[in-house]
Amino acid sequence: MGQQPREDIANTVRILVATDCHLGYMEKDEIRRHDSFEAFEEICSIAEQKEVDFVLLGGDLFHENKPSRSTLVKAIEILRRHCLNDRPVQFQVVSDQAVNFQNKFGHVNYEDPHFNVGLPVFSIHGNHDDPAGVDNLSAVDILSACNLVNYFGKMVLGGSGVGEITVYPILIRKGSTAVALYGLGNIRDERLNRMFQTPHAVQWMRPEAQEECQVSDWFNILVLHQNRVKTNPKNAINEHFLPRFLDFVVWGHEHECLIDPQEVPGMGFHLTQPGSSVATSLIEGESKPKHVLLLEIKENQYRPTKIPLTSVRPFEYTEIILKDEADIDPDDQNSILEHLDKVVRNLIERSSKKTVNRSELKLPLVRIKVDYSGFMTINPQRFGQKYVGKVANPQDILIFSKSSKKSKAEAKIDDFERLRPEELNQQNIEALVAENNLKMEIIPVNDLDVALHNFVNKDDRLAFYSCVQYNLQETRHKIAKDSDTAKFEEEDIILKVGESLEERLKERSNHSKDAPQSTSNAASFEDIRSKTAAGVGTAISFSDDEDTTQISDTKSATRGRKWSSAASRSSRGALESDKSKTSTRGRGRGRGRGRGRGANNLKQTTLDASLGFRQSQRLILVLITIH
Amino acid sequence: MGQQPREDIANTVRILVATDCHLGYMEKDEIRRHDSFEAFEEICSIAEQKEVDFVLLGGDLFHENKPSRSTLVKAIEILRRHCLNDRPVQFQVVSDQAVNFQNKFGHVNYEDPHFNVGLPVFSIHGNHDDPAGVDNLSAVDILSACNLVNYFGKMVLGGSGVGEITVYPILIRKGSTAVALYGLGNIRDERLNRMFQTPHAVQWMRPEAQEECQVSDWFNILVLHQNRVKTNPKNAINEHFLPRFLDFVVWGHEHECLIDPQEVPGMGFHLTQPGSSVATSLIEGESKPKHVLLLEIKENQYRPTKIPLTSVRPFEYTEIILKDEADIDPDDQNSILEHLDKVVRNLIERSSKKTVNRSELKLPLVRIKVDYSGFMTINPQRFGQKYVGKVANPQDILIFSKSSKKSKAEAKIDDFERLRPEELNQQNIEALVAENNLKMEIIPVNDLDVALHNFVNKDDRLAFYSCVQYNLQETRHKIAKDSDTAKFEEEDIILKVGESLEERLKERSNHSKDAPQSTSNAASFEDIRSKTAAGVGTAISFSDDEDTTQISDTKSATRGRKWSSAASRSSRGALESDKSKTSTRGRGRGRGRGRGRGANNLKQTTLDASLGFRQSQRLILVLITIH
Repeated sequence: MGQQPREDIANTVRILVATDCHLGYMEKDEIRRHDSFEAFEEICSIAEQKEVDFVLLGGDLFHENKPSRSTLVKAIEILRRHCLNDRPVQFQVVSDQAVNFQNKFGHVNYEDPHFNVGLPVFSIHGNHDDPAGVDNLSAVDILSACNLVNYFGKMVLGGSGVGEITVYPILIRKGSTAVALYGLGNIRDERLNRMFQTPHAVQWMRPEAQEECQVSDWFNILVLHQNRVKTNPKNAINEHFLPRFLDFVVWGHEHECLIDPQEVPGMGFHLTQPGSSVATSLIEGESKPKHVLLLEIKENQYRPTKIPLTSVRPFEYTEIILKDEADIDPDDQNSILEHLDKVVRNLIERSSKKTVNRSELKLPLVRIKVDYSGFMTINPQRFGQKYVGKVANPQDILIFSKSSKKSKAEAKIDDFERLRPEELNQQNIEALVAENNLKMEIIPVNDLDVALHNFVNKDDRLAFYSCVQYNLQETRHKIAKDSDTAKFEEEDIILKVGESLEERLKERSNHSKDAPQSTSNAASFEDIRSKTAAGVGTAISFSDDEDTTQISDTKSATRGRKWSSAASRSSRGALESDKSKTSTRGRGRGRGRGRGRGANNLKQTTLDASLGFRQSQRLILVLITIH
Repeated sequence: MGQQPREDIANTVRILVATDCHLGYMEKDEIRRHDSFEAFEEICSIAEQKEVDFVLLGGDLFHENKPSRSTLVKAIEILRRHCLNDRPVQFQVVSDQAVNFQNKFGHVNYEDPHFNVGLPVFSIHGNHDDPAGVDNLSAVDILSACNLVNYFGKMVLGGSGVGEITVYPILIRKGSTAVALYGLGNIRDERLNRMFQTPHAVQWMRPEAQEECQVSDWFNILVLHQNRVKTNPKNAINEHFLPRFLDFVVWGHEHECLIDPQEVPGMGFHLTQPGSSVATSLIEGESKPKHVLLLEIKENQYRPTKIPLTSVRPFEYTEIILKDEADIDPDDQNSILEHLDKVVRNLIERSSKKTVNRSELKLPLVRIKVDYSGFMTINPQRFGQKYVGKVANPQDILIFSKSSKKSKAEAKIDDFERLRPEELNQQNIEALVAENNLKMEIIPVNDLDVALHNFVNKDDRLAFYSCVQYNLQETRHKIAKDSDTAKFEEEDIILKVGESLEERLKERSNHSKDAPQSTSNAASFEDIRSKTAAGVGTAISFSDDEDTTQISDTKSATRGRKWSSAASRSSRGALESDKSKTSTRGRGRGRGRGRGRGANNLKQTTLDASLGFRQSQRLILVLITIH
């Protein structure tokens, strides 16, 4: 920031945004064991070098729910090396810190008189390092106890049925800039999805407007860690569920780097998806160059600067369809092998060209998705042997797929076939549960999956009990609703929400004025529900308006925009110029111009998470064998 | 120390000595889950209150090799609360800190400029929290990475065969007092036992004598964590294995509190066995009042002050022999129940009388060892039901034993019976291994036990490989030795050691002068082997002399003694007066007057450790079922 005027620096909150560092990923792999740590080290180095005010992490700092001693030690060492120094911290946390940070010490780490914290790190948890066990502790709590990370966004799920959460922001002040930082640590997608569609289930605490005239109004940031876009909308969070008062959203969990902030049409906020700093599944999305984001906020404007991570192991991905390749003879396996060899060598070549400038050359990850329709598969392990020492993942370069898009009926037959008695020995628990469930029709497979996962990986002895209880409640709730006069189907809420739900909202928000307010020690907080909750009809009507208010907008027309700076930036991040806006009140509404990335997002998957489940299921099988 | 003259304080190293805190022990038990933490909290509070220079821990700070998140967080919180403050640290570590502390930072924690360490803690590891895995990390390494504990005594086992270790002391200076603190983290007893009897396998690095005339010579302390006295001498370390240059030994691992320092006959040093701060097995030794030791060292004198731990859950133990009780009718089970009930109620009564002064009354642990010879056992669980809410361990108040001392033949028949085919399902792996071993006659059951344990609990994938390798080497070694001219049996080493071994020692020590010295960065270190290694015949001849020198004793006659202080001490610790000494050179030799405690020590067992093995074996059974 040497080129910026001193006054600007004093009024600019500078944040390094990163997510999904997955420390400890592949820690037992000879080649890749250091990858996650090196990327995290680089992130911390960038933060130091850019002299940011703080680092903001979007969850999954750890890959394992119970990280190994080795991973913990390395994580602590990296943080200690970069975060403890004599640099003065130049912002203040003005919210109730005991509410924001739920450890025994209850304050932001740099205010502890016994530590020299020069680079504060703020983090929510992800689905990998989420809180579990009797004490509901996350691995991030260990770093918080060490005073190396400010862990926030851990929700206490209260209430009956779906549960309720209240999101309290960390209120940050630096000169004339005020930032309200909301964190929402990972909650099971199905559950959060349902909560977002249940009135009052998610409550956003809003700070009072700044009274000092020299301080701008709050710039509202949300960081969350959820599935973003899915074919099954119940298993993901839609951006349109989020409240409109937000200015900026950091979306963790999705590993594809889509770091350039995008406007979310009709919502009035911008969104960045930084992506993981280490590839945990060899899919196309992970092969894109990895970046972190330098986010500079001055009053109600922000400037994004994307910074490439140069320590990340190169990853080349391609897809081929065997039957489309001219030089392959289906009857000659050698011709297939030769062709694939050519492809692999091209990818290695491509990778080495990209990394030519770097002193430290890393073996690349190489993945070829092979559509083998009409061909026989070859053994990927054997195929990979000759690339030992040339690629980082010789054992799984190839992955085979069939292009055929089955109809639902066909898929069902497949499932049925999978459950043939003579194949039972080969069944995994997933299939068994699925079959069982068909008969029970009360506990969804997904919920059992999660319960198994929590039981095995997270020491949650009440996992099954909770699962059953939750589903019983849900079922009772549903039965009660079914016999209700309105009699609307749970599944239809999103579609039917238009009229009836808005009325319902008004009704409930009136009730809530008399009801005891959710406790908040922060005197400056004002329950948004006490404002008028009249939903304003928008082009796309979602239920997220229910607990937030259409703000009587006193903010300037530049709110949520990027601002141009006189300073030229050396990094690769594009310096975006002002964009014209017309509406003041209906900010963002109708601004539907994305950059064509929305479609890409549809490709996002959470292969890594589902793999995790697979593993846990295998473990469960073992446990079942014993009892 | 208010009553002591200022000069005394400036020249007195004050240490709080404790061991075996077993943090996380019974962390899932509703009643006892906080016990280990409360005791450790009390230890830290005492250290703060007594304003000691540092805390010295003798290993097993953690109960689990991989402590839970919850245990780690609690441990970090306690240490952070007590160890970080503005109190100035008034001693210096003058040895090469990078050699002493093998973490990434390589210095004693209070010298780190980014932490306010006011109460340094020094700890070795025990058998529960010993280093394991690819990176050879202990749970204590996590605390070391956090800069909350100075972890030392982690040995790198080098060399072939039994292996070799070099013990470097932490050299501490405070005014005119100089302390050399040796730490020997737990090594498998069998292995360390053999090393102590192998020439040059254990090397003790000695500092050069103090040159400044105002500083006394080094007061040498060793802290170790091993089985102390066992019926099987191969599975324990004998005090007489230790080098004679030591002045004071802190013995961890043994849970019985025998805290009053004892002279070790013929060795010239005193020894304290602080015992655990939490009872992990309900045996008689653990029922004795728990204490920690305030150890004050001024030049070459020390003063011990024992301090009771008042937060420890009361534990009452007794033994009864049913057939000796007059009021019991063997044919009337009610009379047995009534009698046992009376005993339990007496124990509860006894416990409550002891704790009458305390505000916080804890449910007591109660254990009755019942010799039921000639009677039928009763169900301990059912028996305990009526004591729920009255004792902390209703489920296992009673433990049954038979007094009959079987002959070896009888025991063998028992073993044989245990292996009857129809009972195979109930066999544990121990029995299977034992049976197998009878045929193989190459890998000792103990070694396999340890390998299983390391494989399961410590992620040591090479556990079995190492075990086999080690035993192969051992066997080769033994065969080579058997065909040697001397042809002495390994088993007889201790007994036969007298003449031939001493000669062997001289021979080897001469060789070692030419051999490259083990690397030490500490310029002030002097390999003791370069001094004359001529063994001096003592009453009991052991092989520990091999790598240490009979010091040309420049120390005063008071060396190793307790000194009397003018200050009256308020604590319960007895203020021991000077004891007359006669010899200067042969210090301590022939002073065989113990306090009758030696015999008690023979009762020590390591039930907790063996229980741990049982568990691991059950886990292994599961693993075996899968593959």
